[in-house]
Amino acid sequence: MSAEQPSKRTRTSPTYTLIYHPGLPGRGEFTRLALEASGTPYTDLGGEATWGSGDKKTKEALTGQVYATVAPDSLGEGNSPPVYALPALRVENAGTGGGPLVISQTGNMLAYLGAKIGLAGEEDGPDKWHVSELALTALDWTNEAHDTHHPVNMMAYYEDQLEESKKRSKDFREARCPKFLGYFERVLKGNKEKRDGEGKYLVGGKLTYADTTLWQVIDGLLYAFPKELEARKKDYPLIFETFYPTIKEEKGIKEYLASERRIKYSNGIFRKYPELDRQ
Amino acid sequence: MSAEQPSKRTRTSPTYTLIYHPGLPGRGEFTRLALEASGTPYTDLGGEATWGSGDKKTKEALTGQVYATVAPDSLGEGNSPPVYALPALRVENAGTGGGPLVISQTGNMLAYLGAKIGLAGEEDGPDKWHVSELALTALDWTNEAHDTHHPVNMMAYYEDQLEESKKRSKDFREARCPKFLGYFERVLKGNKEKRDGEGKYLVGGKLTYADTTLWQVIDGLLYAFPKELEARKKDYPLIFETFYPTIKEEKGIKEYLASERRIKYSNGIFRKYPELDRQ
Repeated sequence: MSAEQPSKRTRTSPTYTLIYHPGLPGRGEFTRLALEASGTPYTDLGGEATWGSGDKKTKEALTGQVYATVAPDSLGEGNSPPVYALPALRVENAGTGGGPLVISQTGNMLAYLGAKIGLAGEEDGPDKWHVSELALTALDWTNEAHDTHHPVNMMAYYEDQLEESKKRSKDFREARCPKFLGYFERVLKGNKEKRDGEGKYLVGGKLTYADTTLWQVIDGLLYAFPKELEARKKDYPLIFETFYPTIKEEKGIKEYLASERRIKYSNGIFRKYPELDRQ
Repeated sequence: MSAEQPSKRTRTSPTYTLIYHPGLPGRGEFTRLALEASGTPYTDLGGEATWGSGDKKTKEALTGQVYATVAPDSLGEGNSPPVYALPALRVENAGTGGGPLVISQTGNMLAYLGAKIGLAGEEDGPDKWHVSELALTALDWTNEAHDTHHPVNMMAYYEDQLEESKKRSKDFREARCPKFLGYFERVLKGNKEKRDGEGKYLVGGKLTYADTTLWQVIDGLLYAFPKELEARKKDYPLIFETFYPTIKEEKGIKEYLASERRIKYSNGIFRKYPELDRQ
């Protein structure tokens, strides 16, 4: 899907290009999951299928395209403002004045895509504000996961802030994760009891980008803090017994997770540092 | 404005209630500024005019209403999911099924309000995604400002993480602030050169909630890190000579800032700890 030529589809549907650092799932993964779950064609500039299989020259060219988006002197493409940080989404001919629309901020990209690809709630009515709110809350949790390994200096090496990382990780494991887990368990419970979520979905009775976003955070934490999550699973049965396995098997998601397009965790937001996990 | 009785307006316009911790500008302030800039009536449950002037019993009742919103066992009001953290916005009769809509996450609240109160860009067209993106980026900066005094444990005292706070503040002052300032300076420049922003506005030619949000971050940082910002002002002339003073004088904002409704900075996100500022 990622390698599809956008030019062939220009007249019939929007062409989406996801722009993100090559080789990492990172924050690009939230948008990938939404696009894959909805079967939406897209070009993934830093994605494994586009970038990983190319020769050196192709990779350099693709990397150049990615980093041009966040060039430190850019005033933005067309009428779009410059991008502060990746990921970004480019949509041809969708900007003010007919040029490209280039937008960033994952929560914003997902809200933009959500309504267009059918992942913003059942009627694109009031529910869409809950979908957005829950995705932003899951993304806050992601930021806190990132800060476990970079608590005091964002650009310095992890090894140079190891002691602070241990303190922050203790707070993350013992206070923040239970707070977020307890919260999302209640969201699932409320949507099960009052509507038709069945414990499978956060808002209403079908998949939204709030689900794919929360799923990715849980999946990342299962990788980064396996012992901590294992010990807590029993306290959050809807999350771990219903929600997580259901979303994993959703059409589009299942095929994606089994494909070579799914990038392995490594040195991004979710990192496996056993010394930061429960001992 | 804050003390207006919502019941009188039910039939003619939505009734907005801002729900936030009493006595702090904090993250509630971003929504207050948007409502004030647009002259939108609202009830401000934790606001100075509602909460500060009441007797003990009234204050307790208001505080009870505020914290009921984030009760740790809540499944959410009506068909709205529970709220993870304040601020929240309640809109009567606007939820799925006709009940109240209760939404949280500042960026989401601002996006919801933006189109309704005329602060989402000139045509509520493609620009609205840029307004949202820039507001979210300014809110990220706010989160980083918060973490300067709580870098390793969100609930522990500042005094117990002073050494870590000094390290994080150094990175915030020397790397993060210049990155955000340089970015927003470029956004203002691009919107001045390519459209009609005049250096006054971030997107298009009139005020949006991206402007009020960025303004509040700069204002908070001028309070919290006065020496650092003073030393950097000359490098970002559009921000400090055009944008910041213009927004301060906008209709609605000017009157609000001079009113008793504007809560003073104290122990919220933006704190004046001279030991964390430039020495």
